Amino acid sequence: MKAIIINIGDELLIGQTINTNAAWMGQYLNSFGMEVESSHCISDKGPIIFQEIDKALKKAEVVVVTGGLGPTKDDITKHTLCELFQTELVMHEPSYLRVKAFFESRGLPFLKVNEQQALVPASCTVLENMVGTANGMLFERDGHICVSLPGVPFEMQYLMEHEVVPRIQQKFELPKIVHRTILTQGVGESFIADLLTDWENSLASEDIRLAYLPSPGMVKLRMSIYGGAEESVLKERIQRKEAELQAIIGEYIFGYEKETLQSVLVQKLKGKEKSVSFAESCTGGMMAQKFTDVSGASEVFQSGWVVYHESSKTKELGVDETLISNFGVVSEEVAAALAERARLKSGSDFALSSTGWAGPDGGDEKHGVGTIFVALSSEKGTIVKKLKFGKNRTRNREMATDAAFMLLIKEIQK
Amino acid sequence: MKAIIINIGDELLIGQTINTNAAWMGQYLNSFGMEVESSHCISDKGPIIFQEIDKALKKAEVVVVTGGLGPTKDDITKHTLCELFQTELVMHEPSYLRVKAFFESRGLPFLKVNEQQALVPASCTVLENMVGTANGMLFERDGHICVSLPGVPFEMQYLMEHEVVPRIQQKFELPKIVHRTILTQGVGESFIADLLTDWENSLASEDIRLAYLPSPGMVKLRMSIYGGAEESVLKERIQRKEAELQAIIGEYIFGYEKETLQSVLVQKLKGKEKSVSFAESCTGGMMAQKFTDVSGASEVFQSGWVVYHESSKTKELGVDETLISNFGVVSEEVAAALAERARLKSGSDFALSSTGWAGPDGGDEKHGVGTIFVALSSEKGTIVKKLKFGKNRTRNREMATDAAFMLLIKEIQK
Repeated sequence: MKAIIINIGDELLIGQTINTNAAWMGQYLNSFGMEVESSHCISDKGPIIFQEIDKALKKAEVVVVTGGLGPTKDDITKHTLCELFQTELVMHEPSYLRVKAFFESRGLPFLKVNEQQALVPASCTVLENMVGTANGMLFERDGHICVSLPGVPFEMQYLMEHEVVPRIQQKFELPKIVHRTILTQGVGESFIADLLTDWENSLASEDIRLAYLPSPGMVKLRMSIYGGAEESVLKERIQRKEAELQAIIGEYIFGYEKETLQSVLVQKLKGKEKSVSFAESCTGGMMAQKFTDVSGASEVFQSGWVVYHESSKTKELGVDETLISNFGVVSEEVAAALAERARLKSGSDFALSSTGWAGPDGGDEKHGVGTIFVALSSEKGTIVKKLKFGKNRTRNREMATDAAFMLLIKEIQK
Repeated sequence: MKAIIINIGDELLIGQTINTNAAWMGQYLNSFGMEVESSHCISDKGPIIFQEIDKALKKAEVVVVTGGLGPTKDDITKHTLCELFQTELVMHEPSYLRVKAFFESRGLPFLKVNEQQALVPASCTVLENMVGTANGMLFERDGHICVSLPGVPFEMQYLMEHEVVPRIQQKFELPKIVHRTILTQGVGESFIADLLTDWENSLASEDIRLAYLPSPGMVKLRMSIYGGAEESVLKERIQRKEAELQAIIGEYIFGYEKETLQSVLVQKLKGKEKSVSFAESCTGGMMAQKFTDVSGASEVFQSGWVVYHESSKTKELGVDETLISNFGVVSEEVAAALAERARLKSGSDFALSSTGWAGPDGGDEKHGVGTIFVALSSEKGTIVKKLKFGKNRTRNREMATDAAFMLLIKEIQK
């Protein structure tokens, strides 16, 4: 079954916004066995929107459109959809009440322009947006489906998950497909690919496809099997291959599916009833921020310090000044001292720390830009890991945070 | 003058790779006055590539294609281009020597499959790729130009800058174009749109287009003017409208173009030689993390505390326990105390704090989920701002961080 993605918005065409929606949607639709034939970015112009959707609906069973549904003037998608599907806008009472409540709950005025967000084409099925104000809309034509969604990523994702794909699955018979995503940290794509050469070659005979999905500091491996057999048979075949994979690269695997390093770490700490603290220099709060992004992290998070300034390492955490002057602020010794001091001061079971030259400039005679030390302190002692990255500041901070989390995950798993 | 972008690659369609090339190319072409009409991601299939380029060349003066030029099997772009432009592949001697030298210099074997990278369609102008092995190719048809480039971002960018745009400028007379992007914080798109109704209506007569570009906690307004007049005249017309805009929504404007709240804040603190500290509860380190994402933040950042756990507010920052028990941990009083204690303890000029129910669960009898207090302490006293958001944890934390930064930006601007 074929799908075509259409993203509307001049901001995409002139590159002011990178089109992450197309990637997310492609991956999501594909994971349900749909073949994404093409994706198109087009301008906020009525005739172009009309023509592109019309053309796509002739080619593909499912056309998903995003963007152009806000309350402001440049938003003409809804009017164009009325033209295309020969209908007219009517007030959708439940949406009117929902949008009104949304504004009231935030103490914001409910303006005329907001009322318009509750207008929908009469012939569509309304996909109520419970996380925002612009609804999704579903149209049918000649047995094909066209869905129009807001362009705000998390609103689009909410509607795709809760409204769009369930309806597609109801209407069309999708091929059976089983995925298994395995998450690794600390090694690059090519390194893993090299270790897996023989294993990867053996997948073809099982009709399993492998995709490498790299993201900063992490490589996701997704096995997919499309097939005529029972789901349990497909699953069993995937599981067999996963067991082989574990034997080859088990030490780099930290989780599965939608887990993240921080969600796994919070889970493992909860399981052992242990707490953690952070003393961050170059990661600048990113460890704490990522960790507390996990709901319920408060149960296992004691305290965090961002001792970015050299003097604050001594002032707030009591790191010995002579340690800094002897070994340098970016050193194994200072990383260890930060973690140890944070653990003692907070009284937590573990503490993680970072110090390094995150880039794009910096470095001293001992360590160049991209050198970062992360340390883990526990009652058993302190482990320091030296990392060497490039000059990309944001990426280096992300990778150092991930490496520190992995250090603690491994320690707890021991 | 119109341009169409075509990106070839199954990895883009299934979301394995986010299409950053389209955004970069769009921005680059647009900055030279080209109107990017649309961009398309298509599959590595000959007939689809043929059809899409053929169609685009009829609509736009310039068609830029990326991808499908590597040495591996799925790379059929070059053969398809031969078909489309009715020519055949020939060996390009300078490229052969360059590619051969490239492999030799890296001590890699020069394989038959690599030799093929020096084959080019006989009728094209070769755009020699001095930073990689796959050449760019330029074709002309009916006065329009089609360029095919490798998909590796930095190779594509090299060729766009050194070969493609100079040739386009030579062949076509490009219109002048001026953009101006204005950044606002703290109010929604619809609220701003309502304030700007009359002003927005007045833009048409000046041939200025307005786009609203919302992102979490921020609304970007972009004015664009394409015109026959001198660039200075266009700029002057945009500036006049911007002055009017300032008069209407000036209090929400914090920056321009590619600035961020944190880059503006670091800049302003540097300008005044003032420092800041953070005491974060519900934002969990995000203030520190975003702030230190700006290179050079260390000059104006003193200390950061992530006092996420209730006990750590007292233990690390000395917040009075009775304040917490009397008013609740999420309260105006605790937010103020956190900021004040952080400022006094660190010795910085300013301190920002946060405490709130970030969601998705939480809340007490006084304040529901989504309620967040942010506070600013300075020598002049303490300001607390109460924020009311929805249940999306990540988004709430982002918006609270932004609101706190805005509070300080406003204070410094006074």
